[in-house]
Amino acid sequence: MNEFEIIGRYFAPLAGEGAFGLKDDAAVMPKRAGHDLIVTTDTISEGTDFFAFDPAGTVAQKALRVNLSDLAAKGAAPAGYLLNLSLPHSVHEEWLAAFAAGLAADQTEFGISLLGGDTGATEGPLAIAITAFGFVPTGKMIRRNGARVGDAVYVTGTIGDSGGGLAIFKRETHNLPDADRDYLTARYRVPQPPVAFGAGLHEIAHASVDVSDGLIADLGHIAAASAVRIVVEGETVPLSAPLKGLWGDKTLLRAVTAGDDYQIAFTAPPGLIGPFTRIGQVVAGEGVSLTLSGQEIAIPKPGYRHF
Amino acid sequence: MNEFEIIGRYFAPLAGEGAFGLKDDAAVMPKRAGHDLIVTTDTISEGTDFFAFDPAGTVAQKALRVNLSDLAAKGAAPAGYLLNLSLPHSVHEEWLAAFAAGLAADQTEFGISLLGGDTGATEGPLAIAITAFGFVPTGKMIRRNGARVGDAVYVTGTIGDSGGGLAIFKRETHNLPDADRDYLTARYRVPQPPVAFGAGLHEIAHASVDVSDGLIADLGHIAAASAVRIVVEGETVPLSAPLKGLWGDKTLLRAVTAGDDYQIAFTAPPGLIGPFTRIGQVVAGEGVSLTLSGQEIAIPKPGYRHF
Repeated sequence: MNEFEIIGRYFAPLAGEGAFGLKDDAAVMPKRAGHDLIVTTDTISEGTDFFAFDPAGTVAQKALRVNLSDLAAKGAAPAGYLLNLSLPHSVHEEWLAAFAAGLAADQTEFGISLLGGDTGATEGPLAIAITAFGFVPTGKMIRRNGARVGDAVYVTGTIGDSGGGLAIFKRETHNLPDADRDYLTARYRVPQPPVAFGAGLHEIAHASVDVSDGLIADLGHIAAASAVRIVVEGETVPLSAPLKGLWGDKTLLRAVTAGDDYQIAFTAPPGLIGPFTRIGQVVAGEGVSLTLSGQEIAIPKPGYRHF
Repeated sequence: MNEFEIIGRYFAPLAGEGAFGLKDDAAVMPKRAGHDLIVTTDTISEGTDFFAFDPAGTVAQKALRVNLSDLAAKGAAPAGYLLNLSLPHSVHEEWLAAFAAGLAADQTEFGISLLGGDTGATEGPLAIAITAFGFVPTGKMIRRNGARVGDAVYVTGTIGDSGGGLAIFKRETHNLPDADRDYLTARYRVPQPPVAFGAGLHEIAHASVDVSDGLIADLGHIAAASAVRIVVEGETVPLSAPLKGLWGDKTLLRAVTAGDDYQIAFTAPPGLIGPFTRIGQVVAGEGVSLTLSGQEIAIPKPGYRHF
C-alpha cells in the first residue's frame, strides 16, 4: 500500500475539524476566544525512546503523551496534534492498524483530534515526531521562570517508575512479583501525564516543567530560568512500592535522575492540597540540592541527555 | 556538547516572539486579527530526500522550504516554524553551525522565525521534521476541492528541474555545460517555492496544490477533491533550457512525473496574466490527462510515492 492508502485507511478516520480529512496540504488551526494557542513538539525513535518489540499501540500513545505532558506542564488543555511518521520499509499493515488504534484510544481519552501530518519512508529506525496544540487563557501559560523564594515545590504522581521499567527491559536483575514488574514496564511504555490536572494548573502554579529529563535536571531548568535555588527534601519524593521493591535503598537517587516520568513539577505558594506531593522549597541562590534528614547528599548524574 | 548546548548555541539565536528563547517546554503561537492560522508539516530524511554529501546549509533550507511550499499553495504568508532534529552521533559542530546558518538565511529571506522544537539522537540517518505556520485571511485558505469546470490550470516556475538535478546526482549520463548542471542540482538541493506570490494567491485561485509528488499526480489530487477532469496541454508546460539539454525529447514526460518541484499548480478563471504559466483547463469528468497537439498521450507513472 502506498502513503495515500495508509493515510486514507488508518489516519483519515482520526482527523478533526480543520484537518479536511487529511486530503489537503495544510490544516486550519482551531481558535478559542480569550485563549492563547500553545504548541510543543517531541520526537521518539525506536532504539532511543522505545523498543522494537514494543506494541504499536503503546508506541503511538507514548509519542502522543510525551507531548501532552509538555502542554499539561504549561497549564494548557490539549486540542489536537500533527503526526510525522517515518516508517521503515518493514512496517506492515497490522502494525499500522494497531498504531492507529492506539492514537484513537488516546484521542478519546484526552478529547483531541489529528490535524495533519506527513508519512514517509526511512532507511533508519521508526521515528514519530508529534506536534501538539492546546489552549490556555490568554497570557496564562506557566513559564519556567516564575518561581519565587518562599514557594513550595510540588510534583504529581510518583517519580522513577518509567526508569524502573526501562531497567527491567534492560535485564537488570530483580525479584519483583509479576504485577509489580508489569506496573513498572507499563509506565515506561505508556506515560501517564496528568493532562486534566495540568489544564487547571495555571490557576495555582508560579513555575512549572514536565519531568522528562529527570526530576533534579528538570527542577534545574526552573532554578536557572527563575534565578533561584530549589531544595528537594528527599524523604518526601513520592516513590511507588514496586519501584522500592526493584531498587531498594538506591531508589531515591536513581528515581530523581531517571527521566521519562512525564509528571509535572511545579512551584506554588506553600500549604496547597491536591493531587500532588510537596517535595521541597524555593530559596535564594542557584541550582538544585537534594537533602535527607536536612543533610545535603550528592547527586551523581542529574538526568538523561541525548548526547 | 549536549542537547542544551546545541540548542543554546545554534538554535536559540533563531528564536522569535513566543518562543521564550527556546528555554521553555512550549511556545505561544502568534495571532493575527482577521486571519486563520494555517499549519503544515513535512519530514526530510538523509538517503530519501537528500544526500549525505549535501551541504548542511542546503539541507536546512530544503527542510524548511518544502513546508513553506505547502503554505504558499494554500495562500498563506509564512510566520514561523518548529524544528524536530534527529541527529546521528556522527554529527559535528561544523555541520550544526552550517545547518543553523542555512536556517538563519531563510528566516531573513522569508520573514519567519523559529518557535520551538526538539533535538534528539538517532541510530539511523539524519532526519528533519519541520512544522510551519502561516496566516491567511479568515476562511480564505485555498483548498484542493475548489476547481470548477471552465477554470484554466496554471503553474508557477518551471517543472522537472529538481528531478533533473536528482538524475544528475544519480549519475545519469549527460553533456551539459557546468552552469546548466549546477542550475539543476541546485534546484534539487534548494527548492524555490514562490512564497511571496503564494501569500496573495487566495485572491485569485479556486483550487491549489504544491507540486511535490509530480505535476500530474498533484493535479490528480485537485481533480479527485474537486470531482473534475484536468487536461494538461503538454506543449505549454514550462520547461527550463538546462532540463531540455539533459532529457531531450523525453523532457516533458519525465518532468511532469518527477516531483520535488515545490512550485504551485492552481486553477483560476481563464485569461489571467502573472508570474505563472497557463498549462491546461478544467473540464467535466475525472482524472488528469496529458495532451500534445490535442492528442492524449500515455503517462507511464504519475508521480513519486514513498512506498
